Amino acid sequence: MKHFADQLVGAVRRCRTPVLVGLDPRWESLPAVLRGHRDGRDLAAVAEQYLAFCRGVIDVVAPLVPAVKPQAAFFEQLGPPGMAALAQVIAAARDRGLLVILDGKRNDIGSTASAYAEAYLGPSPPSAWGADALTVSPYLGADSLEPFVELAVQRQAGIFVLVKTSNPGGGMFQDLVGCDGRPLYQRVADVVQQLAARTRGTHGYGAVGAVVGATYPEQLASLRAAMPATWFLVPGYGAQGAGAGDVRDAFAQDGLGALVNNSRGIIFAYARPEYRSRTADGDWQQAVESATRAMIEQLRAETPAGKL
Amino acid sequence: MKHFADQLVGAVRRCRTPVLVGLDPRWESLPAVLRGHRDGRDLAAVAEQYLAFCRGVIDVVAPLVPAVKPQAAFFEQLGPPGMAALAQVIAAARDRGLLVILDGKRNDIGSTASAYAEAYLGPSPPSAWGADALTVSPYLGADSLEPFVELAVQRQAGIFVLVKTSNPGGGMFQDLVGCDGRPLYQRVADVVQQLAARTRGTHGYGAVGAVVGATYPEQLASLRAAMPATWFLVPGYGAQGAGAGDVRDAFAQDGLGALVNNSRGIIFAYARPEYRSRTADGDWQQAVESATRAMIEQLRAETPAGKL
Repeated sequence: MKHFADQLVGAVRRCRTPVLVGLDPRWESLPAVLRGHRDGRDLAAVAEQYLAFCRGVIDVVAPLVPAVKPQAAFFEQLGPPGMAALAQVIAAARDRGLLVILDGKRNDIGSTASAYAEAYLGPSPPSAWGADALTVSPYLGADSLEPFVELAVQRQAGIFVLVKTSNPGGGMFQDLVGCDGRPLYQRVADVVQQLAARTRGTHGYGAVGAVVGATYPEQLASLRAAMPATWFLVPGYGAQGAGAGDVRDAFAQDGLGALVNNSRGIIFAYARPEYRSRTADGDWQQAVESATRAMIEQLRAETPAGKL
Repeated sequence: MKHFADQLVGAVRRCRTPVLVGLDPRWESLPAVLRGHRDGRDLAAVAEQYLAFCRGVIDVVAPLVPAVKPQAAFFEQLGPPGMAALAQVIAAARDRGLLVILDGKRNDIGSTASAYAEAYLGPSPPSAWGADALTVSPYLGADSLEPFVELAVQRQAGIFVLVKTSNPGGGMFQDLVGCDGRPLYQRVADVVQQLAARTRGTHGYGAVGAVVGATYPEQLASLRAAMPATWFLVPGYGAQGAGAGDVRDAFAQDGLGALVNNSRGIIFAYARPEYRSRTADGDWQQAVESATRAMIEQLRAETPAGKL
C-alpha cells in the first residue's frame, strides 16, 4: 500500500492517461441487451443489471485508464439492492487494478463525518465499501473535512473536495465575492491546498484533491496555480459540453495533477451517432472501448497529458 | 396524503411538541444488552442490533413526538447490511405514524440530484427508501435544489436545506460576507424562502425547510424573520450544548415552524448521570422515554412551543 496521491501518479503514468471513467448507470440509457424485457420497476432486477453493466465497462476500461468513479446516487436510487450492487462494483473495479473514486458528495459535522469516512475510505475491511477516495462537500467548513483527512491518511486513501462544480448554477454561491475581492470557491481552494500540503506523498501531491469543473476553463488556470499540491478531479467533459481545450489548464506542466472525468460519453457511447453504426450488433462494449481510446487520444494531443 | 408541511403542522399539533428524535446509532454507545458479547466487527450483526435499537427507540417515542431523523452516515458505515437496516428503520417509523426526515445531506448536479430525490423522497414505492423528507446541501447552487423541490411537491414530501450548521467551524464558509454586507448563509436563506414560498401548503409553510443550528441563537431570530414560509430543523440541542432558551427564536409566535432535534441526549439517555441510577436494570427504553418527556416539558415551558 502506498499514499493515495502516489498511487494516482503511478496509475496515471502507467496508463499514460488521466481519463477517469464515470460509472453512472441509468436504466433508460442501458443497452437494450441488458434491459431485456424488464420495465425497471423491480429494483433488485435493475440492480443486477447495473452490476452487469458496470462489470462490462470495467472489463473494457481496466487496461486503459487509471481509475473509475461510480456515482452513488444511481445505486442509492435502487434502495438496499442498489447499495449491494455498488459494493460489488467497487470490489470488481479494485480487483481489476483500478483506483475507485466514489462520487457521493458526502459530509456532516465532526463525529458524523467520521462515520462517512469510516464507511467509504480505504480497503474493505476495515471500511465497509472499500473505495480509494470519496468526493466531499465543503459547506460545513474545514472542521467537517478534518475527519476525512485524518482517516484518508491512515488508510492510504483520498478525498476530493467540491471547489467549483460544473453545473450552470454552480456559481450562485461558489462565486460569492467577499470584501477582499475573493470568491468563496477560492477560499475553499485555500483550505483544500492547505490540507493537501499537509498530507503530501512522495510526488508532492496530497491526499486531499479538488473537484473543479471543466465548464469554467478560465478558473481552472487560477485554481491550478492556487492549489499546486492538489490532484484535480475535473467533471464536465463530454456530455456536459467541455472539450480537451477546456481542461488543458487543469494539468501541471508534466501532465500530472488532473483526472478528467467522462461518464455518459463513454459508458453510453453505443448510443452516440458516431458509434451507433459500428455497434449495430449490440456490442456496446466495443463503443465503450472506442470512446475511451478517442478521449485518451484527444487529451494526449491537446493537453499536457501528452507528456505522460 | 397531504402536503408535507401540512402533515408536519398536523403532527406537531397532535403531539403538542416540536421534538425531533435523531436516530444516530453508534456501536460503542449502544446499551450493553444490545451489544451482548459482539465486538462490532461483524457489520451484519451490528446492523441487526442497530435495527433492534432503533425499533426500540421508535416504540417509545412514536406516541410522544411527530418525527424522527435517522442519520444515514451511521448506517452507511456498515455497508450494504447497514443500508438494509436503514430501510427497515424508516419503514418501522412510518408504520408507527412518525414522519421520517432522513439526514443524508445529499446533493449533486441536475440529473444526479434527481436520482437522489427519486431514491429518498416520498412513499416506497415509488421511492426506494420511503422517507418523508431529506436534508440537502446547497453548495452546488439553486439549480441543484430544483430536482428535489419538484419531486418533493409531486410526492408530498419535503427537503431541509443546510443554511447554518451547528458545528464550531460552520461559519468558515457560511459566514462569508459579500460586498453588500450579507453573509452566504443569508443568500442561501433567500433561496430557501423563495422555494418554500413557491411550494406552500394550506398552513403557509412550504415543502422546503431549512437546517439552522441552535448553537447560533442570535442568527435564529433573523433567519426566522427572513424565512417565514419555512419549517426549521434545528440541530445542536442537548449534546451539542444548546438549551431551550437557545432555540426560542426558531419558532413562529404560535409555536409552529421549528423542529428541535436531539439525538444522543435522548437515544443514549441511559448513559446520562441523571438517568443512570433509575435504569440500573438495563431498561434503556425507560431512559429514552424520560429524556423525551423532559425535553418536551422544557420546550413547553421555555419556548413558544408551549402554545401548541
